[in-house]
Amino acid sequence: MFPETKKGKEITDIDLVMQQSQQAFEHYKNLAAYKRAAFLVSIADEIEKIREQLVETANKETNLPAARLNGEITRTINQLKLFAQFISEGSWIEAAIDTADAQRTPPRPDIRKMLVPSGPVIVFGASNFPFAFSTAGGDTASALAAGCSVVVKGHSAHAETSSLVFDAIQHAIKNCDMPTHLVQHVLGSGNIAGKALAKHPNAAGVGFTGSFAGGKALCDYSNERENLIPVFAEMSSINPVVFFENALHKKSESLAQMYAASITLGMGQFCTNPGILIALKSETLNLFMQQLSAEINKVIPQKMLHEGICHNYNEAMTEMLQQNGVEVIGHSAQMPAAMEAYPMLAKVTAKTFLSNQKLKEEVFGPFSLMVVCDDADEMKNVLQSLKGQLTTTIMATDEDLNNHKDVIELQKTLAGRIIINGVPTGVEVCAAMVHGGPFPATTDSRFTSVGASSIKRWVRPLCYQGFPDELLPDELKNSNPLNIWRMVNSEWTKENPLDRH
Amino acid sequence: MFPETKKGKEITDIDLVMQQSQQAFEHYKNLAAYKRAAFLVSIADEIEKIREQLVETANKETNLPAARLNGEITRTINQLKLFAQFISEGSWIEAAIDTADAQRTPPRPDIRKMLVPSGPVIVFGASNFPFAFSTAGGDTASALAAGCSVVVKGHSAHAETSSLVFDAIQHAIKNCDMPTHLVQHVLGSGNIAGKALAKHPNAAGVGFTGSFAGGKALCDYSNERENLIPVFAEMSSINPVVFFENALHKKSESLAQMYAASITLGMGQFCTNPGILIALKSETLNLFMQQLSAEINKVIPQKMLHEGICHNYNEAMTEMLQQNGVEVIGHSAQMPAAMEAYPMLAKVTAKTFLSNQKLKEEVFGPFSLMVVCDDADEMKNVLQSLKGQLTTTIMATDEDLNNHKDVIELQKTLAGRIIINGVPTGVEVCAAMVHGGPFPATTDSRFTSVGASSIKRWVRPLCYQGFPDELLPDELKNSNPLNIWRMVNSEWTKENPLDRH
Repeated sequence: MFPETKKGKEITDIDLVMQQSQQAFEHYKNLAAYKRAAFLVSIADEIEKIREQLVETANKETNLPAARLNGEITRTINQLKLFAQFISEGSWIEAAIDTADAQRTPPRPDIRKMLVPSGPVIVFGASNFPFAFSTAGGDTASALAAGCSVVVKGHSAHAETSSLVFDAIQHAIKNCDMPTHLVQHVLGSGNIAGKALAKHPNAAGVGFTGSFAGGKALCDYSNERENLIPVFAEMSSINPVVFFENALHKKSESLAQMYAASITLGMGQFCTNPGILIALKSETLNLFMQQLSAEINKVIPQKMLHEGICHNYNEAMTEMLQQNGVEVIGHSAQMPAAMEAYPMLAKVTAKTFLSNQKLKEEVFGPFSLMVVCDDADEMKNVLQSLKGQLTTTIMATDEDLNNHKDVIELQKTLAGRIIINGVPTGVEVCAAMVHGGPFPATTDSRFTSVGASSIKRWVRPLCYQGFPDELLPDELKNSNPLNIWRMVNSEWTKENPLDRH
Repeated sequence: MFPETKKGKEITDIDLVMQQSQQAFEHYKNLAAYKRAAFLVSIADEIEKIREQLVETANKETNLPAARLNGEITRTINQLKLFAQFISEGSWIEAAIDTADAQRTPPRPDIRKMLVPSGPVIVFGASNFPFAFSTAGGDTASALAAGCSVVVKGHSAHAETSSLVFDAIQHAIKNCDMPTHLVQHVLGSGNIAGKALAKHPNAAGVGFTGSFAGGKALCDYSNERENLIPVFAEMSSINPVVFFENALHKKSESLAQMYAASITLGMGQFCTNPGILIALKSETLNLFMQQLSAEINKVIPQKMLHEGICHNYNEAMTEMLQQNGVEVIGHSAQMPAAMEAYPMLAKVTAKTFLSNQKLKEEVFGPFSLMVVCDDADEMKNVLQSLKGQLTTTIMATDEDLNNHKDVIELQKTLAGRIIINGVPTGVEVCAAMVHGGPFPATTDSRFTSVGASSIKRWVRPLCYQGFPDELLPDELKNSNPLNIWRMVNSEWTKENPLDRH
């Protein structure tokens, strides 16, 4: 039914793929938002149709439990629908109209602008999210919403799942009469295909979620290109959590349960996993550490996504524990079997933490390091010593929040998202979400890879000067046929500029 | 009155400057928008106070005539005031609020986001705009509007002018009780100071307008940093203009006047100077070329900005004329004296143009190359062979526009701004302006360096999850004390989210 090369087989002719993607883009970019929205919903429906098969396949490939996979599929479906709704609303294109002024010296021409899609986007599937950050995940959904074509480099750790999702996309392409090559799927071992895609002249953007080494390599490829293109890589974060004294005093037991769960959720295989916990030394903290250790003790080791990740976790965790001054304070009561992760909790003094860069590196898995500070100044030093993060969290009572305003101010500079009295794991897909942050959390702190704003990665503003009304896109026509919010002569309105004084 | 190091003397201690900039930022970033707005207006007022002295000094340093300099000062002042108005309106911060939903499984937390300033921004003065793209120009104004501190690397070609403008800024800093080091001014020969600034750990962004080599070097510096930061460099553009047959037939005389003026405006020292003119061969075109040549013939050579630019112009122009198949069709009747530019018009067939990459390079000065095409397909090939541009222009009647829709479609892919029946020179400062475009016009096509949106280069989104109302910034508080437009549960409104169903 579909040509073999697009069913998930290895494609060696990247050049052909990229040419086809460019052609599909030329057609797709001019389609009305409601057609793109219908297409996104159709992908969601096609995924729903094969949910059981997807869960079964992904479970086999990734070892993730069925409940988690089902949740992730629901999230992926909702995400596609969110983008459909978002582009239908229309204000996201930032339409602006400055009308002509013939009386001015010199006369002012009519100037209008809106966001337009950039071109074919290369999306790299992420090993830890076979659905939500892979073939029909956030990068693909936002790029298609923007009006871009997409070439997915499927992750080899869940190639079969990726191919199934791609089948669903292909059904949606047929359902909605979209260009055949609007979304393409490339599998291939190693980084050869990925590099060729990212360096191809037709590529207009790259979306990636994964390791620091992978993300940085993609940046370097872009820098070697004849024409620079945007690369958004979400890479590395240890997601510091600060526990204040009154919060610990009031509810150490429930905080221990909450954080043991967050640290070991999905065997710690989340970008937002809380990798370091920061608190002032006290008897209360000692109690909390005991309680947290007891909770970690109960967690049963589970299989990680694949052997490579398990191997890396064991290596990084072991290296961490071998550092001077690092002391194990808790671990799963059960020794892990092959491919299983060993949930682990350690502690270190702030002084040691500050003197050893190694301790600030991400350990991808169910490991967390408690950093014990002598005083508030040391706590601030610890926070200031950290690189850019996706999230930072504060566990506090009202009194704590009042006492430690400066710590909160500091944390705002550190990450893309700051959380009070919650856990960093669990990234809501909504307009206000930011899943981003200063380098090395991502390659560009001005963007997010989750939530409605993630569409902004794949568009550029285009200014139309002196255009006759009939040649303008609907978004910019005087009559505002799409009835969207626009900035007209510096005011937000849905009105026709000709009707305004 | 002010310490010497900030009066425009050479500053060698870049590290101190950047530390001071960081400290100033920590204070300034938390000031309310109306205070930042008042500061921008105060800078504008202080510049107005010394207008005569500025014109006199800049005229001496840049050879630009008084009328042009006066116009540029007015533009700079209006630009500062536009940003003041823009940040007071407030919707630019993209406030979004998704309220909590305790009923959902899992419960949805309260999530809010807005744009926050990135940190100290390094601004490089541009030689060709001593005011509008220099010390208090668009990059500085947009960065200050965003809430960032600024370190200006003044251009050595107009160091005295730059220092005077910096004095005006320092007066405004005193007037408005702003941090002393909110804006700092560094002069220095060569690229040493610039490189040190761009590579300093405290730098959070770089703004540059100038040569391709300069812009690309700044990108490379950023890539060598430990933490990547956004670099927006506006670099190189030849601004293609397509003349269609009916437009030429109807008004070749007036088009010739219009374009001779645009090509030689400010001796061609504009990023938007029309460097190539594209048309189909015809008798009408021959007539137009004669008329355009006659107009260029009348243009009197003027001094260029400085010796280096004049030298580069002569070299690049001569090299262009030495290419096979390039034929001079017009030039100023008057030979240029020392440091003066020689206005020059040449022509070439599309075939030759397509076969020689050299012909697609920017010649910074009053030079334009007419590319004569055999047919519409060749015209499209010429357009397709061009790299990313700041502008592209179409001179056409309604009939032409109707006949050549595909050429217009093509041009939309080429540049940040597309103009019908105007000239590319003259960049209006307004909400709808885009002064940007695909590489190598700029380093990032998603941004503009002119107009209200240019502020977006210096901000990043920050997400607040689970914050008590009183700890939220005013922009995100329930009561909406600033009365700004916000996206609340996916709808634009000024209402309190608690008042909505």
